[in-house]
Amino acid sequence: MMDTRRHLRGIGDLDRAALERLLDLTDHMAEVGRRANPKVPALRGRTMCNLFFEDSTRTRMSFDTAAKRLSADTMTLAVGSSSVNKGESLRDTVETLGAMGVDAFVVRHRSSGVPWRIAEWTEASVINAGDGWHQHPTQALLDLYTIRSERARRLGEDAGFEGLRVGVIGDIRHSRVARSLTEALGLLGAVVVHIGPRTLMPPTPLARSTDDLDGELEDLDVVYLLRMQNERMDAALIPSGEEYTRRFALDPQRAGRLGEHVLVMHPGPMNRGVEITVDPTTLPGAVVTTQVTNGIAARMAVLFDLLGGVETEVSA
Amino acid sequence: MMDTRRHLRGIGDLDRAALERLLDLTDHMAEVGRRANPKVPALRGRTMCNLFFEDSTRTRMSFDTAAKRLSADTMTLAVGSSSVNKGESLRDTVETLGAMGVDAFVVRHRSSGVPWRIAEWTEASVINAGDGWHQHPTQALLDLYTIRSERARRLGEDAGFEGLRVGVIGDIRHSRVARSLTEALGLLGAVVVHIGPRTLMPPTPLARSTDDLDGELEDLDVVYLLRMQNERMDAALIPSGEEYTRRFALDPQRAGRLGEHVLVMHPGPMNRGVEITVDPTTLPGAVVTTQVTNGIAARMAVLFDLLGGVETEVSA
Amino acid sequence: MMDTRRHLRGIGDLDRAALERLLDLTDHMAEVGRRANPKVPALRGRTMCNLFFEDSTRTRMSFDTAAKRLSADTMTLAVGSSSVNKGESLRDTVETLGAMGVDAFVVRHRSSGVPWRIAEWTEASVINAGDGWHQHPTQALLDLYTIRSERARRLGEDAGFEGLRVGVIGDIRHSRVARSLTEALGLLGAVVVHIGPRTLMPPTPLARSTDDLDGELEDLDVVYLLRMQNERMDAALIPSGEEYTRRFALDPQRAGRLGEHVLVMHPGPMNRGVEITVDPTTLPGAVVTTQVTNGIAARMAVLFDLLGGVETEVSA
Repeated sequence: MMDTRRHLRGIGDLDRAALERLLDLTDHMAEVGRRANPKVPALRGRTMCNLFFEDSTRTRMSFDTAAKRLSADTMTLAVGSSSVNKGESLRDTVETLGAMGVDAFVVRHRSSGVPWRIAEWTEASVINAGDGWHQHPTQALLDLYTIRSERARRLGEDAGFEGLRVGVIGDIRHSRVARSLTEALGLLGAVVVHIGPRTLMPPTPLARSTDDLDGELEDLDVVYLLRMQNERMDAALIPSGEEYTRRFALDPQRAGRLGEHVLVMHPGPMNRGVEITVDPTTLPGAVVTTQVTNGIAARMAVLFDLLGGVETEVSA
Repeated sequence: MMDTRRHLRGIGDLDRAALERLLDLTDHMAEVGRRANPKVPALRGRTMCNLFFEDSTRTRMSFDTAAKRLSADTMTLAVGSSSVNKGESLRDTVETLGAMGVDAFVVRHRSSGVPWRIAEWTEASVINAGDGWHQHPTQALLDLYTIRSERARRLGEDAGFEGLRVGVIGDIRHSRVARSLTEALGLLGAVVVHIGPRTLMPPTPLARSTDDLDGELEDLDVVYLLRMQNERMDAALIPSGEEYTRRFALDPQRAGRLGEHVLVMHPGPMNRGVEITVDPTTLPGAVVTTQVTNGIAARMAVLFDLLGGVETEVSA
Repeated sequence: MMDTRRHLRGIGDLDRAALERLLDLTDHMAEVGRRANPKVPALRGRTMCNLFFEDSTRTRMSFDTAAKRLSADTMTLAVGSSSVNKGESLRDTVETLGAMGVDAFVVRHRSSGVPWRIAEWTEASVINAGDGWHQHPTQALLDLYTIRSERARRLGEDAGFEGLRVGVIGDIRHSRVARSLTEALGLLGAVVVHIGPRTLMPPTPLARSTDDLDGELEDLDVVYLLRMQNERMDAALIPSGEEYTRRFALDPQRAGRLGEHVLVMHPGPMNRGVEITVDPTTLPGAVVTTQVTNGIAARMAVLFDLLGGVETEVSA
């Protein structure tokens, strides 16, 4: 019975029309970002609070920059993982910050589902900035926007997502990025294939899966590499780092087989020498830095969509 | 010989007229807080520095939000308690920050009196955000404002404080909240009774005291519960947590005996199951969340009162 | 082949004309700082990022205040020294923040040369806030501005730096302050003498050096005391703290021998009882607090010089 319009906890909070509207809004925010003064007063007087229970400088700074470009105020509460299980204390914190006038909580937590629980305790909007292995919807939004805008730039027109072939490579099972991206691409009609060791595929498939990267490579429009966490190797889920790299890394030979307009993406930070052994700056299709830049625009779009009301507008 | 007008180190810096002026200013700031855009340019160009030698996310964020709503700049220096005794270093820090143009220091320290020492070293205003067991004047201000506005809302008119009966319940001895609140209520003519174990009463009484909560309950207009710190139980100042709860907690039975318009207050965070065993959301008189919201307005009032000069004004 | 105009990594990025331009700009910013509202919109929409790999609250807050007075947005990344040797990770961090739109990195690092490496990885401006024993150019700029403005105030006219005699006293060898200050004073024609134990002089002299403070004292226009680090004594580079203080401290007797208009300076924080045993507030020539205040103006000047373009201007 919750109003899904007020939150972005997961891709499930969006339908196709809402996702397309956010992509259009991201495009507008990207244009703002190219201005000499990239700051607009759209969210003046609004307050965004980062609630980070897991460290992520990169994501936190991206949201912070997005909020400041919209002239919102920001505050950050970085909580040690020791507090993770104190449900009562988390609820008190959320209620207290809500009573102080926080308009949006940006939540990162190592446990799946925490953004949904927080949304039950507050009138503020909740944006999921990564919960466990579950969802990371703003990453999916920035990735979709990057695919759309970079393909339009390379192909001369907006070809759309219908029938687009995206290979997501790596540890699908433990990746909130893969989960959100796959759901979002599915909403728009793209065809996703999950490529990686069988041990790193989710128990319930989200898409067609295979462990034969070389058999798929020439059919892909987008190669999306995931970060391989060292802890997966420690847990013996893959035979060895070398074996993983041999079978699944983007190496110079595989890079040479990519089609002319294929995009190479990564959510960062890259584990060089593990999932990628080629210098991405030598690949015409690599857009990893562009993803970071678009992350600001995508998060501006989400903040504006959730917090901007009739009394606000995007203007210089 | 210090100019008490420039600081809010304790309730002693105020007389009745000054306190009433701050309550009226808080009312104005609360109205600002209800606007679509709750931000005013009143303190643009002013800088507030949080000097926190004791962790308190809640209080720090309340001051920070208040300052930002007035368009002041803020900075935070959170100092580990290891530096507590380095008097020289504290003085250097204060002088250096003062030379950088800080206009107000908001100070929290576990030792009583530190805000007064800091005030000797700087031209900036000093606001006490809690010093040891001594003073916490902005908490008292927000509590008084909550009593005044919530009673006016419930009773249909501003009944004033004269003769108002307030029971402060718990560890009076170690509570800066109790001390500041009792002094401030006294200035306005309210009648305060301190209720709790004899071992937790101050050596020098601040008000009439008793350990018979049940004998007082039906005479109270305001029930103000203090947080019971676990360390008091460890120190054997009370027999046990269960015993404390049995004799002094607001439980469902006691809550049922409260009059229709009695307010139930707590400075937060509540120790549920210790000083309160009833869900406060079921009590019509509970205003704990409202206290948090009013904390922003009260701190805006104090900041504006100390830093706003002839060249500033509160306007949209 | 780098554009030295875009960075302030060391005094070597400046020639005499550029240094004099920065001093004039600092004078303008100092005037802004004396206004009732010391905030100007000059850098609205620009973002400064503090990248601090070594703790320095004082310097970080000075840059932060300077940026906010120019209406720039700021973010801070304080990195534990454990990350010092992860070159790859530092590069990723810089590239990521650059892609998010950071316009200037303010870098403090315990290793010499890090700001130069960072400048190779980013399109943003790089400002050195202290690298190892190497450079600290904004400290030199604020010191030069303090000398110029305080001498003009005392002598009734701007006497210039030509022939000015400056004694820098202490641990020259390990001091980035001494290195930057000596180079900058040299650019403007001042005569610098380094005074301290032979063991604390650099292997390659930067200026004439001596260990006879008393023989130099009466020839100096400026006495610049460095902070003596306890670790030097531990490393047996000086016989003992008492011996150092006896031979090189500014004590009451030496202070009495200073000429009427001699300035006494220190980069802070002072090690009272070690390099100075007289209360500086009793010395008419002591300008230590003024240095802190001028630090804001000097950093505003640098930020404006590097980031202010045709579309920005300093106005109220």
